[in-house]
Amino acid sequence: MATNTYVLVHGAWHTGAELDATAERLRARGHTVHCPTLAGNRPGDDRARTGLEDAARSLVDDLEQHQLQQVRLVGHSYGGMVISRTADLCPQRLARLVYVNAFVPQPGECLNDLVPPHYTALFDGVAAANGGAVMLPFPIWREAFINDADGALAQQAFDRLNPHPYKTFQDPITLSQPMAACPLPKSYVNCRMDSALPQSLGWHPRLSERLGLFRYIECSGSHEVWFTDPAAIAAAIEQAGRD
Amino acid sequence: MATNTYVLVHGAWHTGAELDATAERLRARGHTVHCPTLAGNRPGDDRARTGLEDAARSLVDDLEQHQLQQVRLVGHSYGGMVISRTADLCPQRLARLVYVNAFVPQPGECLNDLVPPHYTALFDGVAAANGGAVMLPFPIWREAFINDADGALAQQAFDRLNPHPYKTFQDPITLSQPMAACPLPKSYVNCRMDSALPQSLGWHPRLSERLGLFRYIECSGSHEVWFTDPAAIAAAIEQAGRD
Amino acid sequence: MATNTYVLVHGAWHTGAELDATAERLRARGHTVHCPTLAGNRPGDDRARTGLEDAARSLVDDLEQHQLQQVRLVGHSYGGMVISRTADLCPQRLARLVYVNAFVPQPGECLNDLVPPHYTALFDGVAAANGGAVMLPFPIWREAFINDADGALAQQAFDRLNPHPYKTFQDPITLSQPMAACPLPKSYVNCRMDSALPQSLGWHPRLSERLGLFRYIECSGSHEVWFTDPAAIAAAIEQAGRD
Repeated sequence: MATNTYVLVHGAWHTGAELDATAERLRARGHTVHCPTLAGNRPGDDRARTGLEDAARSLVDDLEQHQLQQVRLVGHSYGGMVISRTADLCPQRLARLVYVNAFVPQPGECLNDLVPPHYTALFDGVAAANGGAVMLPFPIWREAFINDADGALAQQAFDRLNPHPYKTFQDPITLSQPMAACPLPKSYVNCRMDSALPQSLGWHPRLSERLGLFRYIECSGSHEVWFTDPAAIAAAIEQAGRD
Repeated sequence: MATNTYVLVHGAWHTGAELDATAERLRARGHTVHCPTLAGNRPGDDRARTGLEDAARSLVDDLEQHQLQQVRLVGHSYGGMVISRTADLCPQRLARLVYVNAFVPQPGECLNDLVPPHYTALFDGVAAANGGAVMLPFPIWREAFINDADGALAQQAFDRLNPHPYKTFQDPITLSQPMAACPLPKSYVNCRMDSALPQSLGWHPRLSERLGLFRYIECSGSHEVWFTDPAAIAAAIEQAGRD
Repeated sequence: MATNTYVLVHGAWHTGAELDATAERLRARGHTVHCPTLAGNRPGDDRARTGLEDAARSLVDDLEQHQLQQVRLVGHSYGGMVISRTADLCPQRLARLVYVNAFVPQPGECLNDLVPPHYTALFDGVAAANGGAVMLPFPIWREAFINDADGALAQQAFDRLNPHPYKTFQDPITLSQPMAACPLPKSYVNCRMDSALPQSLGWHPRLSERLGLFRYIECSGSHEVWFTDPAAIAAAIEQAGRD
């Protein structure tokens, strides 16, 4: 079996550490895996001023610093915004883009353009009250994000989240072309129990089909399958990322 | 693991007895489980005059008689109408509502408002010819309701069904508020092979999203998974019902 | 368990041989299984002139030659066009129609009426340059048709495909009635990772619901599950085909 280089890019409120259990499964299969933490989600980062471009540039820095080549670049949720921009900034390092229930923006869109209005209204209020940092209320996390966990795991995982710089949800993305025109191979992994977005305004096919020709892979589990079933999401990422 | 109290509320044409195999799986996990039979589906009940309010009141009586508290109230199909009304009548006894491919009405709707017109036309004719009781023709049962069974099980299960009081499909429900505004926690279990409603006018997300914030759980199997895979639906109900 | 007679009808670019691995699983369960190759896909067939009616007549010839009765007639993809016409030509030999991610035409439609315009444009060009025979470019095959395979299997399966007579995609079908009115029992098998058609213009429910009352069966895998998981598709076909 071919072994590849994977870079797993976390979503909002997460760091690379939350993807470690999944990375371990991929490493056990012989792959090289990096789980960088994006600018804005590191301890001490300025939550009020870090924007989407900062986050993407920090990912590019990480790829360059480790001199990674032929990378399968995997973005989860908000990470889809970041990998889309990264595909513009350093395509020469990438072999494939893999979106895991991730946002696929059109040029000039921001993340908030892609979520239901009741989320935006909620986030606006939370960020205004917390110096530009947004958190997810526990009931939404527990019911809609990590619906496949038991109560203890839901709480334990929630306790690991960090305040997220809201500016990254508001900044329009700079893309030289729609993702459908991006010549890199692309995959979309859809976890069947993901209800972080309502299904009628959901990940797949609404956002996946913006990729043009792409490889579709299903996985069991919720939006937070990284906590609830790392083996399943690792297997799906391998199916999505291989040549 | 926490153990809870579950009350499983059957759908049209069924009684509590058909949910016993599923209840046994939940009991084996330490839970307390009741499977009452609603007014209208008991031997000798007046199929011509029993309505939705009678069915809901009979469920409330059952909860009160057994002095149940902190109930995870699970409704299947037509049972979704009944648990929705029950949430209005005795919320103080309930910890969570769990809909299993179940109807979620808006205030003033009846079940017939939520099914395709060809079902209503069929039911009208059958009920008119049978003193207000409605039955499902075997071919619809076999192909669209219990599609995952073999022929012998499909027939055996069909033989256990009882004529259903059609008035319960026609009575508009009384609800003090839309279910989305009901403050009880809510879950929706969706069996992936359920085709009792056509998918384009289906259970999820059309009816599930009426719950507002809810926990989404998928299960394998058809509308009649109680007969074809009690272990699977018991596991899904536990995922849906736990805190 | 009842044993039945199955005839598996391949899709475009395939022959009966590619369905053999699946047929073997059904035979191991006691069933009789035929996998004929349709006119137009046999070595030496005239790819420029073979049309849909020729393909259907060749299937009828095969059923008659082997004097098959009570056939569960299974059509995959383009094979759905062929079995729909065959149900009109010799219904007396058939017990049930089983569509496996297959086209369900209305009277007078051709296959090209049922695919996205970008496919038709692509096929037009390829067929014009190849004497009326159409092939699938490898990247589309690999990403959208056999998305669940590894690279080696994707290539190996691609090497077995044969040029397909494009006229069979262009010929309007002759049907005496819409398939919903056809009195034969019908089933639809949907492979959950099938992305040969975009989901927003997909197999199920868009095409399946044209069958009227039908039995819905889900299967894991992609459009080319015959290569990637013959055991899974054989089990689904048995669920779909039994009485």
